Amino acid sequence: MDPYQHCVHYYETDKMGIVHHSNYIRWMEEARVYVLAQVGWPFEKLESMGIASPVLSVECRYKTACAFAETIFITVKLEELQGVRLRLAYEMRNAAGKLVCEGSTEHCFLGENGRPLRLTRDLPEFCEALQQLA
Amino acid sequence: MDPYQHCVHYYETDKMGIVHHSNYIRWMEEARVYVLAQVGWPFEKLESMGIASPVLSVECRYKTACAFAETIFITVKLEELQGVRLRLAYEMRNAAGKLVCEGSTEHCFLGENGRPLRLTRDLPEFCEALQQLA
Amino acid sequence: MDPYQHCVHYYETDKMGIVHHSNYIRWMEEARVYVLAQVGWPFEKLESMGIASPVLSVECRYKTACAFAETIFITVKLEELQGVRLRLAYEMRNAAGKLVCEGSTEHCFLGENGRPLRLTRDLPEFCEALQQLA
Amino acid sequence: MDPYQHCVHYYETDKMGIVHHSNYIRWMEEARVYVLAQVGWPFEKLESMGIASPVLSVECRYKTACAFAETIFITVKLEELQGVRLRLAYEMRNAAGKLVCEGSTEHCFLGENGRPLRLTRDLPEFCEALQQLA
Repeated sequence: MDPYQHCVHYYETDKMGIVHHSNYIRWMEEARVYVLAQVGWPFEKLESMGIASPVLSVECRYKTACAFAETIFITVKLEELQGVRLRLAYEMRNAAGKLVCEGSTEHCFLGENGRPLRLTRDLPEFCEALQQLA
Repeated sequence: MDPYQHCVHYYETDKMGIVHHSNYIRWMEEARVYVLAQVGWPFEKLESMGIASPVLSVECRYKTACAFAETIFITVKLEELQGVRLRLAYEMRNAAGKLVCEGSTEHCFLGENGRPLRLTRDLPEFCEALQQLA
Repeated sequence: MDPYQHCVHYYETDKMGIVHHSNYIRWMEEARVYVLAQVGWPFEKLESMGIASPVLSVECRYKTACAFAETIFITVKLEELQGVRLRLAYEMRNAAGKLVCEGSTEHCFLGENGRPLRLTRDLPEFCEALQQLA
Repeated sequence: MDPYQHCVHYYETDKMGIVHHSNYIRWMEEARVYVLAQVGWPFEKLESMGIASPVLSVECRYKTACAFAETIFITVKLEELQGVRLRLAYEMRNAAGKLVCEGSTEHCFLGENGRPLRLTRDLPEFCEALQQLA
């Protein structure tokens, strides 16, 4: 799968002259939305099934600063999928191939009654689709 | 009524070293939320009545740049209230009293059926409370 | 010139379930950056010449709400270019062609001494390039 | 030291009706700015000394969703200070005292030549002040 591409916006920079660190968390979401759509499970599909998917945790290790107008290439990998929890890993590189940052997010999926779904049991097709990110 | 105070966050600056212009639109919302609560009509009250209040327009004229950690004082005035439309005006000043920007927003109010409410007829108490901003 | 395309991010929505009105101001900047690059004058070029270009004003009239994952098409037109001031107009449409919002921004351009440049006199090539947006 | 207080803004919510997870990263920065000023080392002081302090990593574990208009109380603790690295831990609670999220950030400090400072050797007074957060 092709990496998701994000072009750095002016409003994403801060007075240090580079991208503010909080924006990478948003780019992870952009990349996640993109790859889920690519494997046939856009967010809207889960939402139309009455499923909410809160973020349980995020972490991000910054390696190289990004500047305005740079294009950043983001790959998303399935890191863990068991019980009620999905863990995705992200790698961001700039156009020169240099590592910009690495991160991960954890998610659960809540059914209409608000209770966490057991992923392999309750969403087998979703789990199968996610294997494309393994 | 005391002006609403906003202390400039680091993440609100951009690579020009000053506050990015889009943030003033958010500060207008912060100030609007504050004054509506002050006059007894917090957003939550309107929402609990099933009333949505979309923004119809915004405009902002920038006069003086704001720097990180500055405190900005924002006053909100009722500019127009007739038919289905509310117009609020905003004035932002820095600690030295210098004009930072002027702006305005227009709003309508939609009932549960999604139709615009005639403000003085359908929300007379709200309109009366808003006179405190005149 | 092709319109600039922005795909609505999840983090751009608010609790009304639609895009928060402040984000359109950022999309105008995205579109402006895009068209200036298209006509051969990327922001970086102005910045490398020591020219800063503060935003003097913005205004935006919201017509149709945007939802998560929609693609919005933004066209930018030169509305005024005289003295020290540039005014651009923006039109945003959704995939169905429906008008999402209309807006405008005003800009001046400051030389290295911090004084406003007279555009047609001090930046004739820039002005010529901008005619492509007329 | 009193916890830093953040009142949730409307624009910080997303279409799930609660605060978007990326904003907590920004609140950590707000709280960090606040406590550093409290201990006598506002960001501006470091910047005026020619010291930049990039964020090396962030992580955040979300426990309880936050709603619009809630006040969140954020405490910052010194978790590690050795070599070139500072690690701060954050705990956010709502007005009912319920844990909202826990997180941490790592920072280094770059001198004017762009090289990382050894904190206890190069910034002893800063390190001493940070002990108030231990």
